[in-house]
Amino acid sequence: MPTIYLAGPEVFLPDALAVMAEKRRLARQYGFEPTGPGSDENQTPVKRTAAEIYARNDDAMRRADVCLANITPFRGVSADAGTVYEIGFMIALAKVVFAYTNHPDDYGLRVRAEWYAGQAIDETSGRPRGPDGVAIENHGMADNLMIDGGIEATGGRVFRAATLPADPSRDLSIFTQALEAIASTTAV
Amino acid sequence: MPTIYLAGPEVFLPDALAVMAEKRRLARQYGFEPTGPGSDENQTPVKRTAAEIYARNDDAMRRADVCLANITPFRGVSADAGTVYEIGFMIALAKVVFAYTNHPDDYGLRVRAEWYAGQAIDETSGRPRGPDGVAIENHGMADNLMIDGGIEATGGRVFRAATLPADPSRDLSIFTQALEAIASTTAV
Repeated sequence: MPTIYLAGPEVFLPDALAVMAEKRRLARQYGFEPTGPGSDENQTPVKRTAAEIYARNDDAMRRADVCLANITPFRGVSADAGTVYEIGFMIALAKVVFAYTNHPDDYGLRVRAEWYAGQAIDETSGRPRGPDGVAIENHGMADNLMIDGGIEATGGRVFRAATLPADPSRDLSIFTQALEAIASTTAV
Repeated sequence: MPTIYLAGPEVFLPDALAVMAEKRRLARQYGFEPTGPGSDENQTPVKRTAAEIYARNDDAMRRADVCLANITPFRGVSADAGTVYEIGFMIALAKVVFAYTNHPDDYGLRVRAEWYAGQAIDETSGRPRGPDGVAIENHGMADNLMIDGGIEATGGRVFRAATLPADPSRDLSIFTQALEAIASTTAV
């Protein structure tokens, strides 16, 4: 049974255990052995140091066959930084990485709507820029092009919601679609 | 001469060419051959597709000996997502990765001050949580623990400014300190 590393910021949710248990249940339903951050659902939570948490995740990534990462924006316009680290790490290890996001808008649109909300965007220099002069990526990708680019260059895919669900931090419909697609196409 | 991959969001600045040229000049002064995003300073800028930009950076990371990443917060409480991807990628490739940040505060302090500005933090559950219930990492690290954790677990180091400089997007004093320290200790 292929092992799937479920990357994402769910560990920070107040109901982390329930959300993550449901993600793991779905992963098993599609034929995967789930692993990833905080994945000992049957144990009493243990207070670990940052170095211990890092070492556990590093080891789990190396042992996994594929990755499915939740890149729904987390506290800002981009994905959770830990999740992005894990995507880059696993692509470099030649694992096939998939990602999903519950936000339908691409990164450039989110930067305009959320970071520069209501402010004028300069469209005259060939690249859109905020009033601070800082360029806004406009490649139509779900997040910074290194994320989508790395995933697409190595046989993965980014699954995007068509509309924003009521609870973007917990909605699992695109996650489930992604699992189904990975299960039907991944030769691991 | 060891090759150093200069990761960071400077490519987005309105004066990107000047800031990046100065970073490369300093890298050469400390004995490194600089590479990284947007690194053809002597060429007329070319409009590249996202896939082309990804492929160039991927190749440059594989060829580099070490990485020095600018993790100064970019449009939010965390580092630029592309830079974080590159840190994870290069650590997985067993390159030694260093990072610097011009922001003196750790990630948890920034989340409180900037994301939850003025809102009450719940300190009763063992982990600090925002009013939305989402936990705030409090490991005292510069960013998400995967970033600092990966760097520290593999022989790198995160260099942090003691105070916020006047221009955090461009200040190169900690960058220069980091180059000096890397040049004196890295056996590449």
